[in-house]
Amino acid sequence: MNDMHVHAPQVHNQGVAMDLELLPWLQNYTFPEESKYADVEYAERMYRRFMHTQWLFGTMRSVVFGTIHTESTRKLMHLYQDAGMGAMVGKVAMNRNCPETLSENVDDYVAGTESLIKEFSSLPSVGETLAPLVRPIITPRFVPSCTPELLKACGELAQKYQLPVQSHLSENTSEIAWVQELEPESEHYGDAYNRYGLFGQTPTIMAHCVWTHGKELELMKRNGVMVAHCPTSNFNIASGMAPIRTFLDEGVKIGLGSDISGGHDLNMFRMLVYAIQVSKMQYQQNHDKAFLTLSEIFWIATKSAGSFFGKVGSFEPGYEFDALVIDDSVLYPAEYSLQHRLERFIYVGDDRQIVHRFCRGKEVAEPRVF
Amino acid sequence: MNDMHVHAPQVHNQGVAMDLELLPWLQNYTFPEESKYADVEYAERMYRRFMHTQWLFGTMRSVVFGTIHTESTRKLMHLYQDAGMGAMVGKVAMNRNCPETLSENVDDYVAGTESLIKEFSSLPSVGETLAPLVRPIITPRFVPSCTPELLKACGELAQKYQLPVQSHLSENTSEIAWVQELEPESEHYGDAYNRYGLFGQTPTIMAHCVWTHGKELELMKRNGVMVAHCPTSNFNIASGMAPIRTFLDEGVKIGLGSDISGGHDLNMFRMLVYAIQVSKMQYQQNHDKAFLTLSEIFWIATKSAGSFFGKVGSFEPGYEFDALVIDDSVLYPAEYSLQHRLERFIYVGDDRQIVHRFCRGKEVAEPRVF
Repeated sequence: MNDMHVHAPQVHNQGVAMDLELLPWLQNYTFPEESKYADVEYAERMYRRFMHTQWLFGTMRSVVFGTIHTESTRKLMHLYQDAGMGAMVGKVAMNRNCPETLSENVDDYVAGTESLIKEFSSLPSVGETLAPLVRPIITPRFVPSCTPELLKACGELAQKYQLPVQSHLSENTSEIAWVQELEPESEHYGDAYNRYGLFGQTPTIMAHCVWTHGKELELMKRNGVMVAHCPTSNFNIASGMAPIRTFLDEGVKIGLGSDISGGHDLNMFRMLVYAIQVSKMQYQQNHDKAFLTLSEIFWIATKSAGSFFGKVGSFEPGYEFDALVIDDSVLYPAEYSLQHRLERFIYVGDDRQIVHRFCRGKEVAEPRVF
Repeated sequence: MNDMHVHAPQVHNQGVAMDLELLPWLQNYTFPEESKYADVEYAERMYRRFMHTQWLFGTMRSVVFGTIHTESTRKLMHLYQDAGMGAMVGKVAMNRNCPETLSENVDDYVAGTESLIKEFSSLPSVGETLAPLVRPIITPRFVPSCTPELLKACGELAQKYQLPVQSHLSENTSEIAWVQELEPESEHYGDAYNRYGLFGQTPTIMAHCVWTHGKELELMKRNGVMVAHCPTSNFNIASGMAPIRTFLDEGVKIGLGSDISGGHDLNMFRMLVYAIQVSKMQYQQNHDKAFLTLSEIFWIATKSAGSFFGKVGSFEPGYEFDALVIDDSVLYPAEYSLQHRLERFIYVGDDRQIVHRFCRGKEVAEPRVF
């Protein structure tokens, strides 16, 4: 399983204060929590907790938001490295519309990011050589959090070091209107990234894309930008229902994300169920859009998402060996076909049935928590 | 926790064949499985499996569909009785639009039902005397499954023995049109029950009510008919999103149901999350309808639902003592307020944190499975 969008420093807020609207929730929960990650010891304790849960649920690869803090982000990268779990980890770029404690000037952001890049050499996969298991990813939080200067610096870093890019895109309608105000010359939200070289110039993944359509969708397709679809988060924050069937039809790349703590669940198998359910509600409202089958969403969560990491997410020749061993004996396997056994594990099972976890050919041991 | 709508004989199909549309799913999975319950031994094995899962998740009271089979239904009632778990259990009435193996003529239905009524004396609660913990409930499957003669017989039994009634109502739009064809003199789907004394003349609960509005809603309110809201099922079968905020505003009674195997999850705590999420999608589409808060949905799932069983679902004086003891020590309780601890258990926890279960003042031991 691959979690294509998740905020590791929000693990403390998982399943908390879900009654709040987005803005008070950010002000009262998200930002104060992330500010604590200036303290590397606190960060390590929480990041271990986070990774342990990922391990439990068999998530072997992630695309992760850290915080602005270089040393805490470095710690998270080391924890992934030591565990043998694959991750692209982002030191977050932000310098406006946020508390003082989470704002970093452009020079410090660039220096910090370069120190991480230097440590985690980031050459892309060439021939038989695999990319590093843990890599930095350029991470502007989202357009409203970054001045044009910071977005420009992000784009230059991505280009200079050929690094992937992650951010948020078209999650809700008021956010889109805000971006239009901040970047009035942009044709659409996606264009506000594209103008700074942050929209597919290097491999790019954008979380949500609930309201993406028209020219933005065309540009994503043309530039090969991947959607990280986060269905529980879109429910919990009342963002809307992302047009996954349209993305599939149009050939836009897709993966699934937990988006803790907008999402409440780090179990990616449950994310498959939610993604099917979103598509069924869309089908109910418009029968022209067929709902997602189990095979389709399984492909999205494995091979499609995995392509962001290289040859990951399939058992075909030439692919890295990422695998989970499932013991479904408590789910009465003798009574079901193989396909139904998989379906039942996804719908009814949990971490208790995952007995071995492999990433890049090596079994991953239970990470230590303290 | 109270599960207000669940098909016990569909436990085998839990989390299976979710890609199918309603009709082929009924024909190929639901009906063939229910037909097996002619065999009481098979029924006992499956019913034990079902109840064990309910026990795991702390569901102490249920309103349950059985099958048409009297002896298997009797077995299920005995299993609940022996376990000390509260239940209203329905021998299902159906005699049209179903396979031969699941059709029963009116006389046999009445005779079988009366034999269960006789065994499980069904006097309503009077003064300090509590109603039996396990009781029959009159259960016409839904209007399309029952001829007018059978619906009439159901209504007469409910009246004669002062028994509660359960069925399905306004789950999807084609079903509603079908009912209108079958009962052309009815003003609305609910009226097709009402004409036979099956809509609040005795305590009545109707599953789904996704499309209930106008006169049907008015009649439910006037007659005190309770809605069993089944959000996972409504997602999985692409039925739609039930107007729970409207029901709350109008004072229509509500409880939550798992609706296995349209629903895939017997964990009622997860049903709370889904119910909130449905309301958030409705809020996203229409900001006039506030989404459900955790307190509201917790009240719906406990005290509101529990009222169907008598003085159940609250710790107030005069109420039966139904309780779960939760040990949330793995969820880092010291770091959270009491309300957030409950919220985290609901969003992030599972059966592993439920360490004691009480129903009507007695601890409920783990039921035996074989």
